[in-house]
Amino acid sequence: MAGLKNCAGKFITFEGIEGVGKSTHIMFVTEELHRLGVPIEVTREPGGTEISEEIRALLLTHRTEVMTPTTELLLLFAARAQHITKIIKPALAAGKCVLCDRFTDATYAYQGGGRGINLQHILQLENLVQGDLRPDFTVLLDATDIDACLSRAKGIGTGDRIEVEERAFFERARKIYIARANGNPARFKIIDAVNPVIEVQQQIMQALDEKFGAS
Amino acid sequence: MAGLKNCAGKFITFEGIEGVGKSTHIMFVTEELHRLGVPIEVTREPGGTEISEEIRALLLTHRTEVMTPTTELLLLFAARAQHITKIIKPALAAGKCVLCDRFTDATYAYQGGGRGINLQHILQLENLVQGDLRPDFTVLLDATDIDACLSRAKGIGTGDRIEVEERAFFERARKIYIARANGNPARFKIIDAVNPVIEVQQQIMQALDEKFGAS
Repeated sequence: MAGLKNCAGKFITFEGIEGVGKSTHIMFVTEELHRLGVPIEVTREPGGTEISEEIRALLLTHRTEVMTPTTELLLLFAARAQHITKIIKPALAAGKCVLCDRFTDATYAYQGGGRGINLQHILQLENLVQGDLRPDFTVLLDATDIDACLSRAKGIGTGDRIEVEERAFFERARKIYIARANGNPARFKIIDAVNPVIEVQQQIMQALDEKFGAS
Repeated sequence: MAGLKNCAGKFITFEGIEGVGKSTHIMFVTEELHRLGVPIEVTREPGGTEISEEIRALLLTHRTEVMTPTTELLLLFAARAQHITKIIKPALAAGKCVLCDRFTDATYAYQGGGRGINLQHILQLENLVQGDLRPDFTVLLDATDIDACLSRAKGIGTGDRIEVEERAFFERARKIYIARANGNPARFKIIDAVNPVIEVQQQIMQALDEKFGAS
């Protein structure tokens, strides 16, 4: 596990649909990297700064007025622009390992796959907002059993505006996640989220070690 | 003034920096068109729907965290996407004359001119969010005396996060407004906002009559 110390200064994201255990596994990785003396910034999207969390609240609140898909998309990237400038880039510049619960892959999956927004529009915004910033590594916790994951999410979740979408929405999101991971195997590691927690954790640590150990 | 009845189904925007009297003149035009039996929808940007007004509040609130220019830009277009879908397009489809206090020209002026955002990025978002929707006519109330206008705005305004910008910000915004108006004389009418109110009103009505009378 000598590669883990090289996570310093790297931008690592955790992706997957509701109920795949992102929060649990991010906490675990945080503990392990902390133990190894790697400086860490743990954050999440949408959110991460005061303004981005206000945008998050706006995104996730149930209300009578239906939010258009384009509004949702632009709010996500507005929060992201703030998050990148205020949190992610300064943390990376300070040599921290940034662990982020969801990033732009989630926008492709949820707004592209789930809501049916043109993926080219998402790509335009990704370039406009991020410049050349992309995650160094992405753990995709794959919901091989969607029903089990959604049921787990329902048990612990808040049932916000996106969590209450129907099963087909998450199926479409999962498909986009997998397509993106298969299209970029150097950045992604797909891990079956339905396996026992300790196995998933071992696979995450091994993937990080392999990714960053060679450098 | 026979052309005024043809304002039905048209999208008319009012632009200009703080203190040029947009609200006053929109109220006047509303009264006149109402008197002529033209169905009207009066609205404003950012705002116009419950969600867009929430985004407006987010944009205009003073807080410790500095909002990045890109976040501001994306929030404006998020509010606009909602506004177009929920208010502007349905009103136009119903044959109403939509009178809007600021639209995308203000984004070019304030975020492009004022904040220095690349105008090509604004153009990208304009195309993404609006498709082919553009105002049919735009009244630019020009602040030929910026100090007089800013002083008027200060007297009646709330001093929100954008109103408190320095003079040079509004000078840059005014320059972009004028450049856009000169580049598209068929859509814009520039009116000196510092003239007596009744003169400005006469010029607005004459401009609308000329624009829509010919059709």
